[in-house]
This record gives sequence, structure tokens and C-alpha cells, in this order.
Amino acid sequence: MTESTARKSRTPHDSRKGHVLSLPMTDSHVDRDPHSYERWMVGKLMRMAGSPPVRFRLWNGAEVTPEGQEARFTLHLKDPKALYALVANPNLAFGDLYSAGRLAVEGDLPDLMETLYRAIHEARQRWPRWLDALWKNHNPRATGIDEAKENIHHHYDLGNDFYRLWLDQAAMQYTCAYYEQPDLTLEQAQLAKLEHVCRKLRLRPGMAVVEAGCGWGGLARYMARHHGVTVHAYNISREQVRYAREEARRQGLSDRVEYIEDDYRNISGQYDAFVSVGMLEHVGKDNYPALAELIQRTLRPDGLALLHSIGRNRPMLMNAWIEKRIFPGAYPPSIAEFMEICEHGGFSVLDVENLRLHYAQTLSHWLQRFDAHQEAVTAMYDEHFTRAWRLYLAGSIAAFRAGSLQLFQVVFSHGSNNQLPRSRRDLYASPAAPEDV
Amino acid sequence: MTESTARKSRTPHDSRKGHVLSLPMTDSHVDRDPHSYERWMVGKLMRMAGSPPVRFRLWNGAEVTPEGQEARFTLHLKDPKALYALVANPNLAFGDLYSAGRLAVEGDLPDLMETLYRAIHEARQRWPRWLDALWKNHNPRATGIDEAKENIHHHYDLGNDFYRLWLDQAAMQYTCAYYEQPDLTLEQAQLAKLEHVCRKLRLRPGMAVVEAGCGWGGLARYMARHHGVTVHAYNISREQVRYAREEARRQGLSDRVEYIEDDYRNISGQYDAFVSVGMLEHVGKDNYPALAELIQRTLRPDGLALLHSIGRNRPMLMNAWIEKRIFPGAYPPSIAEFMEICEHGGFSVLDVENLRLHYAQTLSHWLQRFDAHQEAVTAMYDEHFTRAWRLYLAGSIAAFRAGSLQLFQVVFSHGSNNQLPRSRRDLYASPAAPEDV
Repeated sequence: MTESTARKSRTPHDSRKGHVLSLPMTDSHVDRDPHSYERWMVGKLMRMAGSPPVRFRLWNGAEVTPEGQEARFTLHLKDPKALYALVANPNLAFGDLYSAGRLAVEGDLPDLMETLYRAIHEARQRWPRWLDALWKNHNPRATGIDEAKENIHHHYDLGNDFYRLWLDQAAMQYTCAYYEQPDLTLEQAQLAKLEHVCRKLRLRPGMAVVEAGCGWGGLARYMARHHGVTVHAYNISREQVRYAREEARRQGLSDRVEYIEDDYRNISGQYDAFVSVGMLEHVGKDNYPALAELIQRTLRPDGLALLHSIGRNRPMLMNAWIEKRIFPGAYPPSIAEFMEICEHGGFSVLDVENLRLHYAQTLSHWLQRFDAHQEAVTAMYDEHFTRAWRLYLAGSIAAFRAGSLQLFQVVFSHGSNNQLPRSRRDLYASPAAPEDV
Repeated sequence: MTESTARKSRTPHDSRKGHVLSLPMTDSHVDRDPHSYERWMVGKLMRMAGSPPVRFRLWNGAEVTPEGQEARFTLHLKDPKALYALVANPNLAFGDLYSAGRLAVEGDLPDLMETLYRAIHEARQRWPRWLDALWKNHNPRATGIDEAKENIHHHYDLGNDFYRLWLDQAAMQYTCAYYEQPDLTLEQAQLAKLEHVCRKLRLRPGMAVVEAGCGWGGLARYMARHHGVTVHAYNISREQVRYAREEARRQGLSDRVEYIEDDYRNISGQYDAFVSVGMLEHVGKDNYPALAELIQRTLRPDGLALLHSIGRNRPMLMNAWIEKRIFPGAYPPSIAEFMEICEHGGFSVLDVENLRLHYAQTLSHWLQRFDAHQEAVTAMYDEHFTRAWRLYLAGSIAAFRAGSLQLFQVVFSHGSNNQLPRSRRDLYASPAAPEDV
């Protein structure tokens, strides 16, 4: 796939569209020859990034090629100031320059990103400490009850029409699907995910379930329809709650599913199951103890809880560009940090499953559909937005493939609960995916 | 079940038999009336322990009954000094007094212990800090390479004839079995455990496996015989290695299983799978980083590793009596501490399963067989030893039932490995237990 983007964004954009532009603007000398120290900077940058098989094409067409290997990708820097921005803060600038059309990519974008992630992962172990400090994500957004509203609004209220273009048509799931067979469609795999989650919670008809962060409400409706439970589903995204309620009404489920437009911290009552799929990423480390205490309060003594979240093999701040432009306040916990939530609540961890490669496949399906609707997206927003989202989806594929991100499903109970499933055989008694989707 | 033990141990015992007797000896005034402050001390002790439904019978036959509830158990303190020892350090003294016959129990021993554990778990949250400090396990044994040898010798070299009396006859497994069906025999459940572990490692014929801490070698032989792999199995218990080698010779497996009498820290080579069942409890927190680095070095890039270990919902020192008398140096990690091992190695955690209640069932089967051979055990050692081991087995049943101990099986890979099993369905394709054992 070849990227060639010409339009340059010269004005800052509305932050709600995901791209505050804080970069130095392009200058007018885009045709001048690069200085020798600029070529040296490109070489240095590549070495710091672990010498990936990447060629740089500079603004005047001059090229800097990788040493001792064939280039598999070309990064085209369209003006000198783009180079300075990249060197000063590559994590943030790469995305901003790409979105602005000042950095173009030749080669498959997910493949490039995976190659970069793997090279940088190796290389950063040899970075001097000051470089790590310079290039890390500075001032990530807070996730207090007011900031959370703004953070979630930024991403999830982009418009249901936008997400409908490329998410599955079965349940509007904006989280990792479950490809129990490699050739499942996106729709099948998302329904399989919902079923897999329900089975892990051992739902039985008549149970009361609470869901924290319910997206467009697909899981809540699935639980009510297919497992006969009643659900209280919380979400602070107004757009999503509106959609979820309409859909429940349309499906005749309004008496069993209640969507509540409120912060998860305000959940009250007691439930047989506590479930949260794809919200923990937005909770923020400071709020983990309160989340644990909330689950402790709201889960009945013999209930099961499931948290499904992007995670890490080791603690690490979210990539600066993703956190600032796409998901403000996002922080995926490391597996030990995840377990500390359970420890804080006095819970007993029963089951952890890592679905990392399933998320890479999910994102590939999303990117395919997104690409098929690029024109529609650009008509809704603009080219800057379309490029930013392509990069976000492609970069996420790469992060899951390279092992920089993980996807953990964690099932736990109160520490004193002995009403536990004996084995996990029941999860696999029949395929989780429906055949007819 | 009623305990009535008359014989009193008046001499310190060989520490290798599991009971250094450091208690005040019984005095001769065992028939005197208790002082009023001694009765007050009993009441205070019971309140500190969360007021369980336990009656105390003192040396002269006088009783202290629980307030506002029926007693379900009786603890018979046979001399005044036993009371002082119990108040000063109940965690240690309860076991020592019971072993010495100076504290007798009326009522089911596992049931009593579970009741005590649950009551104390609740109550200790209200203890003043000084009490927690006073009653904790002081000076747990170190687990350096020299101490480890002594620690392991203490427990595992008690004699193969002893363990043969009450472990399963199929594979001499001294770790948690897997009761995929509730009515499995101990033999079936232990073989099911071995099969479950092999499936989790996705063993294929011709693979090279290394096992750290192989016990009597049952898993290594099972892997070679049923999955066609070659195994290097490490153990520092001389008695166990001798048995393991003989058994491999008898079964014609010597060319595929090599038992190495050496510390796990000396493992060398590279393997397709790294497995350790029931050793991590003896590794010690200080050695976790080195263990992670060892696995990092010895596991091939696309290999899987499995650690099976007793663990905790929260960090906590091992019960003083168990650590000092039964398992010197033992420390079961909390789930987050367990995950930190994986984080230190840069591993990706793929699967965690908690088999806590399976261990309670395993221990119940062991205790039944142990009780059936009490006379033989006493003939091998003495009554003190027999009582100590009954308490250890019963107390362990209780700890797993009360959720004070967990059993984690953790599967992980190198962080960069993408040759991962898609789902866990294959683990459940057929029963893991053989029908004909």
C-alpha cells in the first residue's frame, strides 16, 4: 500500500476531532538542500530507533538509506521543520506529522509500525536515561470524574454514524473480538466474544448483572436476550447511551436492560455479576483502588466479576500521540498492576486469558472497513482526521502484533467465595460463535 | 472425629522430623485451678481470633465457652504453660502444642482449622499493629543455594516409604491434583493434572523440556511416555532423585528422561518448554528475578513456560508453624508478585488458572490415606511426628477452603513470541483423566 498525501493542515484543529496541532508549521523553504547535520540527525534517529529497514526521503528528494540492509519502507519528510519535530519528540510528532500530511509512508502501514515497534523495543533498553525521559509521554490527562467525562466525550462521541461505518453490524463492539476459528467474520467473532464473556461469568436466567462502561450497549442486550439476565449498564458517553437505549427499545429489551448515563463510580446496588469490557483502559491508575472497592461493594458474595482490558507485559505510559490525540487519559495496566486491583479488593483471581493476537485481527478487520469508507470519513471530518485514524488503527494492529499491547480477560470472585466453577471445560462445550451471521 | 492424645513429648525432637520443640515445658501443677486472669486471657485470645464457636477446656477440666453461640469444637489445653505459649505466639504455638499432645482437639480438625482461619481473617483487619507484628512469622528461613538444600532435605528427604503411604500410586505427585470431575480417584486426578499441564504446554513429540523441581519425577516420565518429549528434570532432594531414576529405568524411559541432582539455578541449555510444578513456593521472593532471567535464557523463542504454585490473594508471610516445622523457607507469592516474575522476564502472560478447591480435595484424599496409615507412620517416626503431619494436612485443607491459600497455574511466553495457541479449546477436547486407574 502506498501513502501519498499532499494536503497540508496549516491550522490547528478542534481537539474533539482528535488532533490538536502543536507542531512547528511548515516553512516555505521546502525545496532547499538538507544541511549535513540534518542528514546526520536522520541517521542518529534511525540508530536510536534500533536501525529498522527504513529509508528517509527528505523534502528535496534526497534520501538517507539504512546501513547494511535493504529498506522495506520509505518515510517521506516533506519539510525541514518536520524533521526537527520528529527528533525532539518522535512519539508525539510521528502521528501529528502523518496526520498533517507532512510525513508520508510508502509500504504497508501496519507492517511498518510493527517493524518500528519491535526495533524500538529492543533499542530502548540501550537508551540513555535522559532520552527516555525526553521522549516519554509528558503530562498524560487525568481521569477524575470531571476529566473522565471530557476524555470519553473526545473519543466516543465522535458520532455513531462514524463508528457504524467500520464496526461490526451485529453488536457495535469497539473492543477485541474472539476469533475462536481463524476464518470467522468480524460479526461472528464479536458475537463469540460476547458469548465467551457470558460463559466466563456463568450467567443463569434471572441473575442481575451490572456493566461498567457499556459502549453502544451490545453486551448488555446480548446478556439479556441470550442468557435471560437483567442488566444495569453504565456509560458517560451521551451518544452511545442514546444509541443503546434506542436499540434496546427496537429489540424489545427495555424492560430487562437499563442504560444509565452516569460514571461507573456511581454504581449502586448488589449484583450477581460485575462486568466491564474495555473501560479499565480509561480508569487511570489512581482510581484502581476505588474501582476495587466498588466491585467489593456491589458484587454479591457468590458472584463473579470479569474485567476485559488492554494491558501490558510491563508498566509503561501510553504512547504520547495516542494518549493526546486519540484516547485522552488512557493507560493500559501491566499484568501485575491489573492483579493489584484484585489484591486491593481481596479478590481471588480465577482465570486470566490473553487475547492479544485476537485484537490484532479485530483491528485488521476494522482497518479494512475503515479504508473502504475513507471518502465517507473525510466527508464527515477532513483528511487530517482520516489519516490520524488510519494511523491509530494501523499502529494498534502493530502494537498487538509486536507484543507492546496485550488483551487480558480476568475473572475473579470474592476471596471467601467457594461457589466456583470446577473447570473451564464448560466454556468450550460448543462453539461460541453463531454460524448464521 | 475426636482427638484424645495422652502422651506428652518432654524432649526436643530432631529438626529433620519437622518439630524443633522450643516451647516452655509442661509444669507439674497441671491440676491446679486456673487463675481468673488466665480465664480472662482465654477470652481475650478468642476475641482476637474473631470469636469462633470454640470452647476451651483447661487443665483442671474447667471450661471457657464462647459468648452468645454454641461451641462446635473444643480445644483442650493440658497445662498452664501451654496457655502462655499460645497467647504469646499462637501461630507457632498452636502447632507445637498440638504436635506435643499438650493441646487436643474435639471436632473435625480440617473443619476447626477452616473455622479458625475464616474468623481470624476477618478479625485481623481490626488488630492493632503491634499485635500483627508480635504474632507474625519471625525470621523465616533463607533460600540461598546452600540453605535451599537444607530446606528441601528437611521435608522431601523424610523417606520415600513415608510418602508412598499416602500419595497416589500412579505418579507419586506431591502437588495439587486436577479433579475435572468431582468423583475422580486421587490417582485419576493426579494423572489428569499431569495431562492438563502437558496440554497447556502444547507438547509435541521430539520437543525438549526442562523441569525445575521434579519431585519423584512423575511429570517428567509422563511427558516422555505420553507426549514423546525428552526431559531434563532438576531436583536437589537426593531421596527423590534416586527414586525417580529407578522408576525411569523400570519403565524403560532412561534414554528420554534425565534426572539431574542439582539446583534449578544451574539449569543450562535451551528448551521448547519450561515447567515447574510446586517448586516456586520454595524459591523465595529474593530469587524471583533470577528465576525470571533463568527462564528467559533457557526458553526457546517460540517456547511456552508453565509455573504451578501455591499462591495468595495478597502478600502474606507463610504461617510460622508451617514455615518453621514443616516447610522451612516456604513463601507462596501473591498473584501480583507472581506476575512480577513474568514482568521481570519480559514475558507475556497467556493463561492463569486457579485450582484452589482442587488442592483442598487433593489434601482431603491425602489425609484419608494418612489417617489409614497412622500406626505405620508412628512406627517410622513417633506420635509427635504423626500429630504434626495430621495438623499440617488438615490445616492445609482448611487454608485452601478458606481462601487463605490459592493454587495458580500460569502459562507464559517470551513477549515477542507470536506462535501462540489461538484458544484454550484444545485443552478440553477430551477428558484429561484416564478411565482405567
